[in-house]
Amino acid sequence: MNTDTASIPDRIRAAKIAGATLSRAPAQRRQDALLAMADALEDPSVRDELRQANDADLVDARAARARGELSDALVRRLKLTEAKLEVLATGLRQLAAQPDLVGAVLETRELDDGLTLSRESCPLGVIGIVFEARPDAVPQIVGLALRTGNAVALKGGREATRSNAAMVSALHGALARVGVDPAAVTLLSGRSEVSELLQQEGLVDLVIARGSAAFVDYVQTTSKVPVVGHAEGLCHVFLHSTATATMAASIVLDAKTDYPAACNALETLLWEPGAEAALAESVRVLASAGVALRGCPATRALHTQLEAADDTDWDTEYGDLVLSVRRVDDLEAALHHIERHGSRHTECIVTQDAAAADDFLARVDAACVFHNASTRFADGYRFGLGAEVGISTGKLHARGPVGVAGLLTYRWLLRGGGHVASAYGPGRRRFKHE
Amino acid sequence: MNTDTASIPDRIRAAKIAGATLSRAPAQRRQDALLAMADALEDPSVRDELRQANDADLVDARAARARGELSDALVRRLKLTEAKLEVLATGLRQLAAQPDLVGAVLETRELDDGLTLSRESCPLGVIGIVFEARPDAVPQIVGLALRTGNAVALKGGREATRSNAAMVSALHGALARVGVDPAAVTLLSGRSEVSELLQQEGLVDLVIARGSAAFVDYVQTTSKVPVVGHAEGLCHVFLHSTATATMAASIVLDAKTDYPAACNALETLLWEPGAEAALAESVRVLASAGVALRGCPATRALHTQLEAADDTDWDTEYGDLVLSVRRVDDLEAALHHIERHGSRHTECIVTQDAAAADDFLARVDAACVFHNASTRFADGYRFGLGAEVGISTGKLHARGPVGVAGLLTYRWLLRGGGHVASAYGPGRRRFKHE
Repeated sequence: MNTDTASIPDRIRAAKIAGATLSRAPAQRRQDALLAMADALEDPSVRDELRQANDADLVDARAARARGELSDALVRRLKLTEAKLEVLATGLRQLAAQPDLVGAVLETRELDDGLTLSRESCPLGVIGIVFEARPDAVPQIVGLALRTGNAVALKGGREATRSNAAMVSALHGALARVGVDPAAVTLLSGRSEVSELLQQEGLVDLVIARGSAAFVDYVQTTSKVPVVGHAEGLCHVFLHSTATATMAASIVLDAKTDYPAACNALETLLWEPGAEAALAESVRVLASAGVALRGCPATRALHTQLEAADDTDWDTEYGDLVLSVRRVDDLEAALHHIERHGSRHTECIVTQDAAAADDFLARVDAACVFHNASTRFADGYRFGLGAEVGISTGKLHARGPVGVAGLLTYRWLLRGGGHVASAYGPGRRRFKHE
Repeated sequence: MNTDTASIPDRIRAAKIAGATLSRAPAQRRQDALLAMADALEDPSVRDELRQANDADLVDARAARARGELSDALVRRLKLTEAKLEVLATGLRQLAAQPDLVGAVLETRELDDGLTLSRESCPLGVIGIVFEARPDAVPQIVGLALRTGNAVALKGGREATRSNAAMVSALHGALARVGVDPAAVTLLSGRSEVSELLQQEGLVDLVIARGSAAFVDYVQTTSKVPVVGHAEGLCHVFLHSTATATMAASIVLDAKTDYPAACNALETLLWEPGAEAALAESVRVLASAGVALRGCPATRALHTQLEAADDTDWDTEYGDLVLSVRRVDDLEAALHHIERHGSRHTECIVTQDAAAADDFLARVDAACVFHNASTRFADGYRFGLGAEVGISTGKLHARGPVGVAGLLTYRWLLRGGGHVASAYGPGRRRFKHE
């Protein structure tokens, strides 16, 4: 069934059945699947095939870059290096070693004698993931999906078509070797297949969309399936008056330059009166690192070399070595700026004042709120979740880095001995609820 | 701000601020709010006002019923009796006694020396609830929302306009007495205010829709805010060949007749060969209770008095004393029927065979799956959740009866000492993840 010629609903139905079988198998089977995939990524002949497919994608991508159609960053992310494959294999082994949560009993309650309620963890079912070019996202996503007993339908970026196909083919081989139906993982191609995926209400349980804000918005407005969007990250660092200059500069530099295209990179630096030294050191190291700085009038009064920021800067995710800088009156004004311009992703305060830190941490409405740590830590691996399928800026279901917990739901199971509800109520039986 | 003349966005902004203040107050404040509301519902002068408002609604509703525009059931549900008010006050006190979950630390992990990650529970923010006529839903919903530090915008059924207004007014008085800003609870009126509510993306965090399937579908397709829908419940009981006749009849009778309009009521009875005696006893007690039965040909061959069911019956939620009955070949066929026709709400098997029960419980994809217990137990109070704002048939965020847990989300808080992400990686620092 899992061939390119079968219809999308047929392939997803086959994936669903394969996923359901895997979810009911002993935990060992899911672990074996991940270990087999890790082994495959280290197999020399698999690596040859991956390299050939990736090289072909890279030839086209470099030609597109020469025509100005693709960025250097995208070409770099497309390249599957030996080091990346090593990290991927290690990640799959770490994920395999994590406790199995399929069927885990989350809570149990005795409603009455012989009437026991339990809440048990279970897979969502079929997860659709539409993501950008990076082919190394494939084993991460498949690993998380299979670890949690889900089936998965993937669609990667056009530039990585051959790399993604080679990757899925390698993973299919690994699954077949340990007796897991490869149909649980199906690779979609082309925009029309994505459109069709988004219409599979009732068959697909969740769509995870990773890409530009415009792309995620398109998926969210057209999908009939619930969507967890991983899009914009407009993150702030606020320099409190007690921030030390070295710590401030170190955090700001890392948050801006470690990986400027990431959604957890810093976009706007806020500072209050008293933080002038921390600001000055931050401006110095950022300028040395080649970051283009755009300031509000108060910032430019101190640092005349900065370009002028305009009102659109506070709402812009540069994704590049550009940073806007704004003076705010105090912590209250910083909170107000973040509330108005932030994307509820990751926000950071740099301060030596514990009360200010507590206030900031208590009051910012975002998935991740940090004190004296770079925004770049907002990441599934760094958080110790093993891996992530994306970072959710929504508040429902999963928030922040989405790891295994975000791919699970639960069912309420009630085991009785012929109990009926009409036996309970005023003047009748009472629930124990123990 | 919280007056009928202020705009919807202004009232919701005021509600958000009041809710945020309540969520940051000590837990005692939220408890006090619920106890004050319980006291109000037992205050004789409040009861007088509620009775007058409710009587006025009832006069109109009875006139509408006489014109054939409203059902008897709706008029009954509209009536606020002393007994109902007593149950509501008790429910609020039980909810007040539950542990406070706002700010609860759900997990903590040391990423490295001096770099500590915690996941903390927090309110969603502003919850919009659009529900049917019953005015007793108001204190339940407000109680759950304030217990979890949320603000709430409510819109009830048109028939209960005066009752709902009197109820909200009583609750506002109670909140003011314990120093909680009544703006946290705002009552909407009219369809246009509901439409406007559904457009408040970014201001309203979750909409809970309770009503007919058509109404919930309307809300889900037009809302820009995420929606948890509480709509159809097409629940099945499957009589396994080992089901005893008395237990089967008792469960089926309760599931169908205890409250036929409820979403957790039984709509289709499935039976397999070997369950003829359980079927016969079920048919006997259902007929005695005045239930109209519609059978498949195989069922009618045994019970010739049944009307014939057609294909639409398997997809119909009667909400009334009507039941369809179908023979299936075996448990596998029962699972297939439920997969195809069920609404993922509540499904039940009656069997003496533990292996069959385990198989059914493991394989049915529904919010609630029961063994030898009536489908009517699928309810927040009966599950011991204290209360419910609805029953979700979706798989994301909250599943089944939605109590306090469904009104909370979480934030990731990271406390460091100047840590930067670029310090970690191959050949550099390693995460501890303890």
